[in-house]
Amino acid sequence: MSPRTTGQVHIIGAGLLGTSIGLALRQQNVDVTITDASPANESLAIDFAAGRKLASQDAVSLVVVCVPPDVTAKTVIQALNDFPSAVVTDVASVKSTVLAELVASRSDTSRYVGSHPMAGREKGGTLAGRADLFVGRPWVIAIETNSSSNAAQQVEQLALDLGSTPIRMSAQEHDHAVALISHTPQLISSLLAAQLASADDKDLSLSGQGLRDTTRIAASDPRLWLQILSANSGQLIPVLKSFEKDLEQVIEALEHVGTSGSLSKLGKVLETGNLGISRLPGKHGSTNTSYAQVVVMIDDKPGELARLLTEIGAAGLNVEDLNLDHASGAQVGLVELSVLPAIEEKLVSTLRANGWKLAG
Amino acid sequence: MSPRTTGQVHIIGAGLLGTSIGLALRQQNVDVTITDASPANESLAIDFAAGRKLASQDAVSLVVVCVPPDVTAKTVIQALNDFPSAVVTDVASVKSTVLAELVASRSDTSRYVGSHPMAGREKGGTLAGRADLFVGRPWVIAIETNSSSNAAQQVEQLALDLGSTPIRMSAQEHDHAVALISHTPQLISSLLAAQLASADDKDLSLSGQGLRDTTRIAASDPRLWLQILSANSGQLIPVLKSFEKDLEQVIEALEHVGTSGSLSKLGKVLETGNLGISRLPGKHGSTNTSYAQVVVMIDDKPGELARLLTEIGAAGLNVEDLNLDHASGAQVGLVELSVLPAIEEKLVSTLRANGWKLAG
Repeated sequence: MSPRTTGQVHIIGAGLLGTSIGLALRQQNVDVTITDASPANESLAIDFAAGRKLASQDAVSLVVVCVPPDVTAKTVIQALNDFPSAVVTDVASVKSTVLAELVASRSDTSRYVGSHPMAGREKGGTLAGRADLFVGRPWVIAIETNSSSNAAQQVEQLALDLGSTPIRMSAQEHDHAVALISHTPQLISSLLAAQLASADDKDLSLSGQGLRDTTRIAASDPRLWLQILSANSGQLIPVLKSFEKDLEQVIEALEHVGTSGSLSKLGKVLETGNLGISRLPGKHGSTNTSYAQVVVMIDDKPGELARLLTEIGAAGLNVEDLNLDHASGAQVGLVELSVLPAIEEKLVSTLRANGWKLAG
Repeated sequence: MSPRTTGQVHIIGAGLLGTSIGLALRQQNVDVTITDASPANESLAIDFAAGRKLASQDAVSLVVVCVPPDVTAKTVIQALNDFPSAVVTDVASVKSTVLAELVASRSDTSRYVGSHPMAGREKGGTLAGRADLFVGRPWVIAIETNSSSNAAQQVEQLALDLGSTPIRMSAQEHDHAVALISHTPQLISSLLAAQLASADDKDLSLSGQGLRDTTRIAASDPRLWLQILSANSGQLIPVLKSFEKDLEQVIEALEHVGTSGSLSKLGKVLETGNLGISRLPGKHGSTNTSYAQVVVMIDDKPGELARLLTEIGAAGLNVEDLNLDHASGAQVGLVELSVLPAIEEKLVSTLRANGWKLAG
């Protein structure tokens, strides 16, 4: 399949996102050049097959700016000057601040379309780059009234070539959305994990999957997030204040557990939490798909999981989601299989017949 | 292997925990009787093979009280009366309140040892019961000065028979630990999910794994958690106030992003979060095991994952952790394999040689 992107793509910044974009485009034989403020990073990205070095005779058609948030606007302005016939986009996590600096600089914003792929990993850097980083992820295209339709289309085609779903929003709509669904969870997760920093080892020895899940993203890079959070402070503060108000009410309710009405306030927060999570979009882009879960205990040795899945495949049954967990302190694996409810019974009877140890 | 538990075990309460204990003991041919305030639940649990009905001539050796937290103490007191030669334990998530009621009732506390298996699921009820629910999980044995050593030993043997790791703590030490590692994450997750309840669909369409992980446990049963949180309010409030103080500082820092010193306060919280998460115990009970990750893209059809794992098994390579994710909106699967760093290279070359599409 030939890519939608036809001209030369120039990537500025060979971190996680820049490298991943380069790898994905190179897989489709798009002509990609890549540069980085650090010559060592640039060489690494080129060795890693994310693109080639920019040459003086190159005719760049699309520039993708993938530098840290605090230097994004400056780099976009420079790119609009350096490549006077190219469309320029960036991938920064906050869009209004970049746009404001651009407008203030009187640059040619008709050739600029901000964008933001909703993809990432806890680890960053050139070698964390993955060609499939964007597959199936939303990619926000922040089209302003001044953007030319040709520019918008070129950026959308890039997103499609990388396997993403382009979603059109204004810069402000985008920043409002990510404050809620990305920046607030990041900050709350960090605050929660921060409470563990001075805890006793004995207390932490009781910790389970709930704590692990709620704090997982607290392992993210503080320098990057400091830039993102401060750039989007205007949208972030109202969400945090709403959270803080609810937290205050919960503390007050707990301080008066005996008083009538206190418990109902606490219960209300827990129920609203149930409601909130039920509104998250499900797998395959659909809402509220609910799978049946089947748990199998397997020996912790090579080949066991393969044997299990071979038998499931042989029965013509499709697994939607799979989680292998090694229970802490034990040398067994717990495999949680998620399947469509319609095939749960057949799966269970097949596995039982084959002698697998099923939970329940 | 014969179980450590030799006498008859009587379970009161056929919910998730009671049923799971019954299933696990029955698998090992322990004589189990089970009862529930709801006759329908009791029948269901017996049909589910979690135990048999209690008979008048039975000689119960150990009673396990698995009723909701707010009726636990009352039920333990009743059990100490009804079974005058049996040891009695309970599995409630908060231990000091149960103990205080018992002491006040002047019951024979030498035959009582409170306990708390650190295991659960987002769903509850008889049919959510699983024999392997406790495998590899810590099980707190809350021994007070008054508990007889025989009673403590019997409860510890139950925990071991169920595959758990018994950990001795006082009731107060336990309540302090769970406030930090279980009750606070639960409440914070609910508060975070509650912010989504009235969000726009378009905002939520951008949500990713970070939001999903941080809010997963917000799907838990509000009625149960209302009882747990209010019973442990004394230990919970200081942790929530510490969180609130940090949150206030973050909001203040965001309100003054331009002012010198503000960014460093925000950065400090993010770094402390990094430190906190690094202190969580790892897999296999060890601390800070860090695995190498290899991501493979597979077609979304039966047998693909099995074929992948068969080839890995054939190469003699062991997978420590596996995650299959169906990228939202796309019909491909992303398999993230976690392996010991020492075998990463061999895994990558084996998979490449066999034609698998590897990220990067």
